[in-house]
Amino acid sequence: MFNVVIVRYGEIGTKSRQTRRWFESILMNNIREALVSEDIEFKKVEAKHGRILVKTNKAREAVDVLGRVFGIVSLSPAMETDADLDKINRTALKLFRRKKREVGLEKPKFRVTARRITKEFPLKSPEVQAKVGEYILENEESEVNLHEYDIEVGIELMEGKAYVFVDKIYSWGGLPIGTQGKVVALLSGGIDSPVAAFLMMKRGVEVIPVHIYMGEKTLEKVRRIWNQLKRYGYGGKGELIVVKPKERERIIEKLREMKKEKYTCVFCKYMMVRHADRIAREFGAKGIVMGDSLGQVASQTLENMYIVSQATDLPIYRPLVGLDKEEIVRIAKEIGTFELSTLQEDEIPFIPKHPVIRGSWEEFRKIYRAVFGEEPKRGGC
Amino acid sequence: MFNVVIVRYGEIGTKSRQTRRWFESILMNNIREALVSEDIEFKKVEAKHGRILVKTNKAREAVDVLGRVFGIVSLSPAMETDADLDKINRTALKLFRRKKREVGLEKPKFRVTARRITKEFPLKSPEVQAKVGEYILENEESEVNLHEYDIEVGIELMEGKAYVFVDKIYSWGGLPIGTQGKVVALLSGGIDSPVAAFLMMKRGVEVIPVHIYMGEKTLEKVRRIWNQLKRYGYGGKGELIVVKPKERERIIEKLREMKKEKYTCVFCKYMMVRHADRIAREFGAKGIVMGDSLGQVASQTLENMYIVSQATDLPIYRPLVGLDKEEIVRIAKEIGTFELSTLQEDEIPFIPKHPVIRGSWEEFRKIYRAVFGEEPKRGGC
Repeated sequence: MFNVVIVRYGEIGTKSRQTRRWFESILMNNIREALVSEDIEFKKVEAKHGRILVKTNKAREAVDVLGRVFGIVSLSPAMETDADLDKINRTALKLFRRKKREVGLEKPKFRVTARRITKEFPLKSPEVQAKVGEYILENEESEVNLHEYDIEVGIELMEGKAYVFVDKIYSWGGLPIGTQGKVVALLSGGIDSPVAAFLMMKRGVEVIPVHIYMGEKTLEKVRRIWNQLKRYGYGGKGELIVVKPKERERIIEKLREMKKEKYTCVFCKYMMVRHADRIAREFGAKGIVMGDSLGQVASQTLENMYIVSQATDLPIYRPLVGLDKEEIVRIAKEIGTFELSTLQEDEIPFIPKHPVIRGSWEEFRKIYRAVFGEEPKRGGC
Repeated sequence: MFNVVIVRYGEIGTKSRQTRRWFESILMNNIREALVSEDIEFKKVEAKHGRILVKTNKAREAVDVLGRVFGIVSLSPAMETDADLDKINRTALKLFRRKKREVGLEKPKFRVTARRITKEFPLKSPEVQAKVGEYILENEESEVNLHEYDIEVGIELMEGKAYVFVDKIYSWGGLPIGTQGKVVALLSGGIDSPVAAFLMMKRGVEVIPVHIYMGEKTLEKVRRIWNQLKRYGYGGKGELIVVKPKERERIIEKLREMKKEKYTCVFCKYMMVRHADRIAREFGAKGIVMGDSLGQVASQTLENMYIVSQATDLPIYRPLVGLDKEEIVRIAKEIGTFELSTLQEDEIPFIPKHPVIRGSWEEFRKIYRAVFGEEPKRGGC
């Protein structure tokens, strides 16, 4: 029935013509990648007058998949027909009937919204709306109501064709992945880090997922989380990089010896960022994204984040820093990582009972020197 | 009519007992500060069984003000009465009548929700609900409906008192300001930076507002923005610090001479962070918050943010990095800074027509050396 998907995008429209072309072409590539990956046949993906048209007989399925492509604001499965009033009327009626069954109302209220995107069609938009509205009223029990309606019939006219639709599905927005470079994302297995990675992806960033090994159970969990996140990653999906840190034993032993076990978590995070920094350089990534937020647990303090930040001269992006836990959980549920994040993890025997609340950089340096025999230095120096 | 405000808080409840006490006492102080600042008389602020009670005859006015105190999840103007069924009935009926007039329904649906917080009251919660419900039904045209209701009468019983209310106003959540240390916020006069500062404040951080002078018009605008933001700042409100950078002329001249005008914006931001870094050290602030987001304009790139980040070894917090422009605008409107951010600014004659999109750190260093005769170094080094 449907033979095309209308893809509408937002922010790209506000850019210079050149940037816009470039954005459009990346978005079209991501759309193609998404459809090919999910095995949804399509004939063509083309940019036209500020929207993208995906010609496919699997429009419903395509909409489901494209709902996970960033940079898209809304989607409509539509029927393309010649811009001829008779054909438009018949198509609109067909879609109206289908939608009427779906909403299950005997006498639904509706309106018709038409837009001439190119102007060669002889009738103006209000005239098209009136004609199509009349035709539907004649043929189906219904009622016109411009303000409160159960069904909206949309018609877009361009280049001798009409696109008729009855659904507009709102999507994530954001920017197409691949327009904003790369960052390394540290994935721990918790609720927060996948949400942080997701938000960067949504802003067009390609994410290189890195996990610092804790045990097989946690690794399996992180693999499942990344597999879920990848479903939003059309346009740039890396494979999970797993780092088995050799220095961990040594650090833990030394901390015990110095009776500084309370620094274990800060030290551990510092080393994670060191590894992330190294991998970022290998892959040309321009930053590191972490799931840090403030005050969720007592040790999430500005002081401890300061220490961890000293491990790299790359910017650390913390998109969750201004969010409450409930807001983070809400996003995690929406993107399907919440359930996975609550799966069982390996127990970590070396987590201290009372982690340091406001770590001191001077003290941290002392411990670092004792462990490594040298001053801590940033990856870049 | 009302003589108390019930203040409910969320995240604090999940912390250890000691942390919780500390949080409660900061929240109570912020509540007192808010009421005193706004000249709202109150008799007492006390913590009881996981909620805070504000005894005041100006409960309505207090609720308006406390709606801007972070750490509070919801508020109810309430009537405190003895925990005696007759008195509870009469109080509930009085509030019910008042609310009925407000919703303007002849036969509103309602339910009663009771909670015994301490257990000395002889009736159990369901019994209280049944009794009070009956009493209302007998005296007012109405109907009980537990699932779809126009009015909910709440009753909380503790320590021989009953607290009766018909409104629960949801608030910002977050954490009390003062529980999470201080950061410097760079305020430019645009839409984004006040929202970024706001989100950090919401997470309990005291913000030190810094503006780098551009001209009188912009300064006046930023003052008005900060005055608006301060309305959320009970618990820690600094005065706006204005820096007039002496080096600007020299930098602009040099950039012109080297034909590197395209680096003007990046250089300007880098210097802003240098100033913020210096002020942060003076005030013991542990980070810098900026309104950066990705790809809103062509020059908001990971590369340019990398360069700017080199100006400090303090963490730069960018709470907007994962948000779309519309989401940022929505918050700005909600907190009342949007209108102010669109006021006129001083024109800046030296903004280049084509700012560098992906600045190079090597090139930036070259320019820096030419301007200052030395290598760029972080504030901390």
